[in-house]
Amino acid sequence: MGVLRLPGAVTIVEVGPRDGLQNEPVALDTAAKVAFIERLADAGLPVVEITAFVNPARVPQMADAAAVAAAITRRPGTRYTALVPNRRGLDAAIAAGLNEVGIFAATSNTFSRRNINQDVETSLAAYAALTRDALEAGVRVRGYLSTAFGCPFEGAVAPERVAEVARHLADMGVYEVAVSDTIGIAHPGQVEPVVTAVAARIGLEHVALHLHDTRGTALANVLVALACGVTTFDASAGGLGGCPFAPGAAGNLATEDLVYALEGLGVRTGVSLAGVLEASRQVEPAVGHPLPSRYYRAHAASSH
Amino acid sequence: MGVLRLPGAVTIVEVGPRDGLQNEPVALDTAAKVAFIERLADAGLPVVEITAFVNPARVPQMADAAAVAAAITRRPGTRYTALVPNRRGLDAAIAAGLNEVGIFAATSNTFSRRNINQDVETSLAAYAALTRDALEAGVRVRGYLSTAFGCPFEGAVAPERVAEVARHLADMGVYEVAVSDTIGIAHPGQVEPVVTAVAARIGLEHVALHLHDTRGTALANVLVALACGVTTFDASAGGLGGCPFAPGAAGNLATEDLVYALEGLGVRTGVSLAGVLEASRQVEPAVGHPLPSRYYRAHAASSH
Repeated sequence: MGVLRLPGAVTIVEVGPRDGLQNEPVALDTAAKVAFIERLADAGLPVVEITAFVNPARVPQMADAAAVAAAITRRPGTRYTALVPNRRGLDAAIAAGLNEVGIFAATSNTFSRRNINQDVETSLAAYAALTRDALEAGVRVRGYLSTAFGCPFEGAVAPERVAEVARHLADMGVYEVAVSDTIGIAHPGQVEPVVTAVAARIGLEHVALHLHDTRGTALANVLVALACGVTTFDASAGGLGGCPFAPGAAGNLATEDLVYALEGLGVRTGVSLAGVLEASRQVEPAVGHPLPSRYYRAHAASSH
Repeated sequence: MGVLRLPGAVTIVEVGPRDGLQNEPVALDTAAKVAFIERLADAGLPVVEITAFVNPARVPQMADAAAVAAAITRRPGTRYTALVPNRRGLDAAIAAGLNEVGIFAATSNTFSRRNINQDVETSLAAYAALTRDALEAGVRVRGYLSTAFGCPFEGAVAPERVAEVARHLADMGVYEVAVSDTIGIAHPGQVEPVVTAVAARIGLEHVALHLHDTRGTALANVLVALACGVTTFDASAGGLGGCPFAPGAAGNLATEDLVYALEGLGVRTGVSLAGVLEASRQVEPAVGHPLPSRYYRAHAASSH
């Protein structure tokens, strides 16, 4: 394209089974999750985050993490990962046969304390130890960096602050930092300053973007990020993960919307849009409400 | 911004009271429409399309066009316009005191025949006569060009075809062509070829974009269009105009989502986001379902 220089291909990290389902009010049964994950892998998604090894008292939706990991038929070439908050989670993930995990830090202390009961500095020290343990066990680690475009409690976050925490994560050995718009507030004017600041510290090839579509800006943000050279994006099939208390509110950037836009731009994803639509269609009844992906909804309407 | 060259300011054409309400299953009463229009003008929207002077048997939602036009208190500096399909509609618009109208052509014969019962060539001849009459009466004319990114019946539409019909509209004297993604199928990869082809024929300053967010791509499309130099965009408060038969399906690009993204990019709109939110909030009960604008929904959720 003339006005935008875009990469030829991108990697989509499917987070629906974890970030999506974790934010749904209803906990799916294990079989439904397993079928969902297998359909997503069959659709060609190169990375699928399948669950989180977290405290089931706090996140009952993920209580069957070990069962899910044990039950899925693994597709050769697909990478499977899971979120782990601590050593207990890491051990459980390793016991479940995963060789890749994710950790989640935040840029702002208030959010960090509310989410993981530690300030940012304390959490980074703990994650450094956890990452060292993981790497020694042959497990790759991805870092999520929450509230990178704004904190619900502290407001604006300076790109330099995002870059600084990203650098800490990179220094401890994470292979990629998913710069995350946790609350879906990022607008396209923020993307270049944040991406540029982070890339200057950790290298563009280690930067991924994790966007929510709460305010409808996710794909516009992707477009700016593509122009900045970012080639890894998180997405959630069906847009799973909308806030359960906000009818109609969108959750994660929907995999369908992302694939449709990227393929239209001539950016290869390796993902079958039809396959993702089918995965969403099959999981929707278990979720119990219409999935918010706009592409999915338009497709569902035209199929009736 | 470094990776994108953007204009400093854009003009938003508010089409909620017409394109939005016309596609809602429930017809609002005149007083609700008038209040909605007045709130939108108060929010700083520079152009408001208030109604359509069309056959009330075909479009009952717009049956009170004359009453709406007569009842609104006009805000100095705001432009008010309405859609007219023919001489009868033009006369009614003039009688109602409007000095600006819109006409709607299509790029594809099948769509044109189904929508206005004429093939494209026949419709252009009729519109040429209508535009001449309008201009002689001192009325400015805007042209909508439907199915510019694809036709639901004929499929793909070549950018050259879009440009050719746009040129016909420009030649008859319309001041602007709203290149329209009628069915919300446009992806960002189409925007530059279409805009470039049309601009080559009629001049970039006469090109507006009218997008629907059916597949979630509208703001990404806006971003590409901005980079191409387009400075006029249609939008609908609350995202009004979703297909009534598709629960959750999005309609027009929402004014709130557009203003939020543009202001974030440092592109001036002159529109108060709070004012648009208030107009949407007040009209929502009459519409009878949650408005689909993602920004609006996120705002509504956070205000509870």
